[in-house]
Amino acid sequence: MGYIDLRSDTVTLPTQEMRDAMYKAEVGDDVYGEDPTVKRLEEMAANIMGKEDAMFVTSGTQGNQVSVMTHTHHGDEIILEERCHIITYEVGGIGYLSGVQVKTIRGINGIMDPKDILNAIRMEDIHYPKTSLICLENTHNRAGGTVTPLSNMKEVYQIAKEHDIPIHLDGARIFNAATYLNVDVKEIARYADSVMFCLSKGLCAPVGSIVTGSKEFIKKARKYRKMLGGGLRQAGILAAAGIVALEKMTKRLSEDHENARLLAEGLNSIKGIKVDMSTVQTNIVMSDISATGLTGAQLSSKLLDYGIKVNGAGDYNVRFVTHYYIKKDDINKVLHAINTIVKEQ
Amino acid sequence: MGYIDLRSDTVTLPTQEMRDAMYKAEVGDDVYGEDPTVKRLEEMAANIMGKEDAMFVTSGTQGNQVSVMTHTHHGDEIILEERCHIITYEVGGIGYLSGVQVKTIRGINGIMDPKDILNAIRMEDIHYPKTSLICLENTHNRAGGTVTPLSNMKEVYQIAKEHDIPIHLDGARIFNAATYLNVDVKEIARYADSVMFCLSKGLCAPVGSIVTGSKEFIKKARKYRKMLGGGLRQAGILAAAGIVALEKMTKRLSEDHENARLLAEGLNSIKGIKVDMSTVQTNIVMSDISATGLTGAQLSSKLLDYGIKVNGAGDYNVRFVTHYYIKKDDINKVLHAINTIVKEQ
Amino acid sequence: MGYIDLRSDTVTLPTQEMRDAMYKAEVGDDVYGEDPTVKRLEEMAANIMGKEDAMFVTSGTQGNQVSVMTHTHHGDEIILEERCHIITYEVGGIGYLSGVQVKTIRGINGIMDPKDILNAIRMEDIHYPKTSLICLENTHNRAGGTVTPLSNMKEVYQIAKEHDIPIHLDGARIFNAATYLNVDVKEIARYADSVMFCLSKGLCAPVGSIVTGSKEFIKKARKYRKMLGGGLRQAGILAAAGIVALEKMTKRLSEDHENARLLAEGLNSIKGIKVDMSTVQTNIVMSDISATGLTGAQLSSKLLDYGIKVNGAGDYNVRFVTHYYIKKDDINKVLHAINTIVKEQ
Amino acid sequence: MGYIDLRSDTVTLPTQEMRDAMYKAEVGDDVYGEDPTVKRLEEMAANIMGKEDAMFVTSGTQGNQVSVMTHTHHGDEIILEERCHIITYEVGGIGYLSGVQVKTIRGINGIMDPKDILNAIRMEDIHYPKTSLICLENTHNRAGGTVTPLSNMKEVYQIAKEHDIPIHLDGARIFNAATYLNVDVKEIARYADSVMFCLSKGLCAPVGSIVTGSKEFIKKARKYRKMLGGGLRQAGILAAAGIVALEKMTKRLSEDHENARLLAEGLNSIKGIKVDMSTVQTNIVMSDISATGLTGAQLSSKLLDYGIKVNGAGDYNVRFVTHYYIKKDDINKVLHAINTIVKEQ
Ligand SMILES: [Ca+2]
Ligand SMILES: [Ca+2]
Ligand SMILES: [Ca+2]
Ligand SMILES: [Ca+2]
Ligand SMILES: [Ca+2]
Ligand SMILES: [Ca+2]
Repeated sequence: MGYIDLRSDTVTLPTQEMRDAMYKAEVGDDVYGEDPTVKRLEEMAANIMGKEDAMFVTSGTQGNQVSVMTHTHHGDEIILEERCHIITYEVGGIGYLSGVQVKTIRGINGIMDPKDILNAIRMEDIHYPKTSLICLENTHNRAGGTVTPLSNMKEVYQIAKEHDIPIHLDGARIFNAATYLNVDVKEIARYADSVMFCLSKGLCAPVGSIVTGSKEFIKKARKYRKMLGGGLRQAGILAAAGIVALEKMTKRLSEDHENARLLAEGLNSIKGIKVDMSTVQTNIVMSDISATGLTGAQLSSKLLDYGIKVNGAGDYNVRFVTHYYIKKDDINKVLHAINTIVKEQ
Repeated sequence: MGYIDLRSDTVTLPTQEMRDAMYKAEVGDDVYGEDPTVKRLEEMAANIMGKEDAMFVTSGTQGNQVSVMTHTHHGDEIILEERCHIITYEVGGIGYLSGVQVKTIRGINGIMDPKDILNAIRMEDIHYPKTSLICLENTHNRAGGTVTPLSNMKEVYQIAKEHDIPIHLDGARIFNAATYLNVDVKEIARYADSVMFCLSKGLCAPVGSIVTGSKEFIKKARKYRKMLGGGLRQAGILAAAGIVALEKMTKRLSEDHENARLLAEGLNSIKGIKVDMSTVQTNIVMSDISATGLTGAQLSSKLLDYGIKVNGAGDYNVRFVTHYYIKKDDINKVLHAINTIVKEQ
Repeated sequence: MGYIDLRSDTVTLPTQEMRDAMYKAEVGDDVYGEDPTVKRLEEMAANIMGKEDAMFVTSGTQGNQVSVMTHTHHGDEIILEERCHIITYEVGGIGYLSGVQVKTIRGINGIMDPKDILNAIRMEDIHYPKTSLICLENTHNRAGGTVTPLSNMKEVYQIAKEHDIPIHLDGARIFNAATYLNVDVKEIARYADSVMFCLSKGLCAPVGSIVTGSKEFIKKARKYRKMLGGGLRQAGILAAAGIVALEKMTKRLSEDHENARLLAEGLNSIKGIKVDMSTVQTNIVMSDISATGLTGAQLSSKLLDYGIKVNGAGDYNVRFVTHYYIKKDDINKVLHAINTIVKEQ
Repeated sequence: MGYIDLRSDTVTLPTQEMRDAMYKAEVGDDVYGEDPTVKRLEEMAANIMGKEDAMFVTSGTQGNQVSVMTHTHHGDEIILEERCHIITYEVGGIGYLSGVQVKTIRGINGIMDPKDILNAIRMEDIHYPKTSLICLENTHNRAGGTVTPLSNMKEVYQIAKEHDIPIHLDGARIFNAATYLNVDVKEIARYADSVMFCLSKGLCAPVGSIVTGSKEFIKKARKYRKMLGGGLRQAGILAAAGIVALEKMTKRLSEDHENARLLAEGLNSIKGIKVDMSTVQTNIVMSDISATGLTGAQLSSKLLDYGIKVNGAGDYNVRFVTHYYIKKDDINKVLHAINTIVKEQ
């Protein structure tokens, strides 16, 4: 990586160990259920999440969309946080693929108030769609990688169970959440009927995510995955990297969190830049640079000259994401560059 | 009508004049375009709204849903007020029939802030659905029959045009809005590309609503109407009542508004009942009875003994709707009954 | 009716008795379940078909589409005869509204071979959609009003039951089928889980059809009807005509069949016109006029000068449909006119 | 590969050269358009097919489904051969994902009569869906790998252009067709607006297919691919194998065809087994074993003891597919084994 790339943790390249694993991967035709490496990954993933079964998918979007398709019927209504990934970044798949209407709730740091969820559940009436799913996201991407506490998840889960409504967890970065909460990832996953998490992003696999849930759920989901074209042939190549991701990369995320914190503190000490430190919980830093006189696009463009890539997340906001390929030293370089740029204003 | 029925203006029976008109209606097979009465109604409706063309539909829901189907493609995103009729009472048709994702905005008295609409419009990005429609509702049912002012509609319309996004107006009670604003209904309709309004409700026709818009829009909409089973044969029977509705019933709605105001003021003077008079603009009164010690369901049940029907609109709210069959004298009876019931608490 | 209109039985106007019944109809808000005339019609219809429950819809298309929506899930496959009404004339609603794939079977006179149906049922496989519905049509419109015998229906029904697949019967003209078979209509309806039939067409009601089935089916179907905008307010106006249709018009269809037969025989005796008499079973006559030197469009146009309306059903085919407003004398006039036109060639 | 696996060419493992290429592949985040290997593959594929642009997808099903989604609108009708892959093996995606109704035509050896296609195109009518796509499949899988001649494709293409209807070609095995026809693959691709072909199957890549078409088509298709979860991150790993597939594996398919022919002739000489040699054109052999007294399942099971895998393609049919890992010597072993098994009957 020539650049210090803080745009997203999706830019992570496969590690050398992943390259080796892919090279030697034993593969077969997974549509026939004959790829041993895929099978091993799926078993491992189910175990780690404490679920009965698991399924490899080619992206977080595929995992989320197949999960919603599997939980719901066309014409239902589902409850999600207003700025969640499913609503924001999945190309309107909710309407197109599942034919459901959304009821969104504005959360604080991505955390919905259980009372709002309770109020949003529809009773039976000829005018009303059926509420058939609640979606959570932990960590919450657009809120800045913030973590929903277990107590909130538990409360939502109880409301859901009382109303016989399943919960899907978009856990794209669930290992970041578990790292922050300092709990086994199972402790988070238990408050959801299905969990999607990514092998790419912070875990560095080149391609792939996992959906976990009950045996019955995954069986049904496999058919939807096939329809979407996610039934792969010798997928063991990708699964091999996924196994390395699960075995080696889930325990080191605290480094990324420390780097994010360092960066956030450094940014906060630059005149004109504000970071709400209470939201810097994992590997994402959202900064407000409006008082610098620079727009996000301008800062982003100037940083390129320093070999640094960041994403404008709005007119006067910049998002930084730390990951395996961002070292403490890089953080210092970034802070130095921004300091210089801001002073020149 | 044995009861004083304030549950909704949908309970209005056809007037004697409508009965007569239906009896004598000249009809033909409207699927072949041969029903003269339907044609006459559609031309009259287009003229009244200042649109090129119009189409008879069997309900407001059908009119709204066909309009959204016609304006959008599956996978788009559309913007609506959070508590609008389309989202609340149309059985999740938005997702089922149009396959669109909704972006809801919380309005004040059902009126969305144009800035919120502007912010909600998506730019082009591989992750984003296309924003392809903005829906307005005037008067706004769940907000209590409140009217969106022309200035707001104009501002939203300009934003929409700048982004090449059509506007659909759910004008189920657009004549109530025009009455309140004291303008020709065309002045409201001009800020929307398609307008749905109801011949039933305050206008007393037994069945039917109208969708108006450009010739091209209505041509496309007719095909969707046929698919939904709204292509009728000798529909002139119903259209005949619709013509009476348009000719005789649109000018008298101020009576209903006066009765609503009388009722609201009377309720406000009853201890324990609160009505926000600023929202009593047309024929709907939303009251908060929590301080009476009664729930909406309890009051509703007790009023039945007095021959009065109302709708609980929530735990401690009661909704009253005035219409052609509610006379000033009925208002006094209702107030008297409620007074008595509350005192007995 | 100034014209002798043989284009379709959909052109039938309401009878005087229907006008009277509509005029006096007792009505209420059917969305609240308060329209006594609708209720009476629905009960009567359920009884006549031998089903638990019934629902008024605004057209045969709405009845068929809602039935398919209710029986199936998006992504299923359904079996239908290749030229059935649902596939041919319902605007592609099967794909749009139900999201199902169709497996069509070519029938003889609209009658599918039960073996073909058996072969078309999918077994469980990751690549296959689930077969979730079989649709029949009796009488079969495009085949020329031909009747599927009870023995065939019974055989198909048994196959369906063995595979736990429901049957929907498009019985738009089921009373014509019953008349031809000389059985109670229940004897046909028993081999289907849901039956749609029309009050318009041969029965002369201005608007409306009925869906019948189990209580559970109709309950679910009502919600889909609402979504499509088929939940009407004071629908009793239309239902009143429907009651007359059921009470007075179902027993007289043999007249229409006799007239059709007369017409067919007459046509067959005209040089250049061929009618397959084996298909002239009910009120539809399909004729091949290719040897007259006239196209269907030409004959149709020339007949207009005689005050006669017919439909070209293809380049050299003409379709004639008899109904309540076609008397024996009209048949003679039509034959005379065609004879004259053909001779002039 | 311990087994002689003739079930399908999807079982092919990546070659050593593919393993090497994947190991060394230069990758980036393809959602940001930064994966150089994916870009190289897509450019190469577009060139080879003579199209403006190309897009990598994770399976043939994804390529076909995204193509149909891109060409059509919900509610359209599309024309396909009755037993094509899209209808048979893609989990009903046509209805679910594109909301279209299908009009199927029975072909001979998978080849539709252009006259049947012409007749199937709908004219404009309020009752009719719009015909918006024709799908071809060359080679045709279920017909036994048979090839549609260029003359037929050209004729269909002309009909399509006259009616302004696009053509999608499911060319999963288009290189087998080109090999049989002894033409450049462009000569086939020119008669279609979009072409999907597989890098897996006969070309041995572990995962992946390609969709090619105009720039505008591919741009739109990329968004649907993203929605289905087919937007991958470091997809260059898979693309690297795809490049080897295109560079090295497309020219050797005649070997597979020769082996298929050898096998077919050998089978034909076994008493009780019939192969229609006229259909043995590429790498698939369909055999009728009914006269051996064995079912497909029985033969398949007995062959397993010989280390041979085949697929029953029906009660008394067995399908054999040759590919890179099937050598001439294997064909002899298979024939010997079948001969022995049949004699033992
Ligand atoms: Ca990565
Ligand atoms: Ca579903
Ligand atoms: Ca009314
Ligand atoms: Ca649309
Ligand atoms: Ca359904
Ligand atoms: Ca489309």
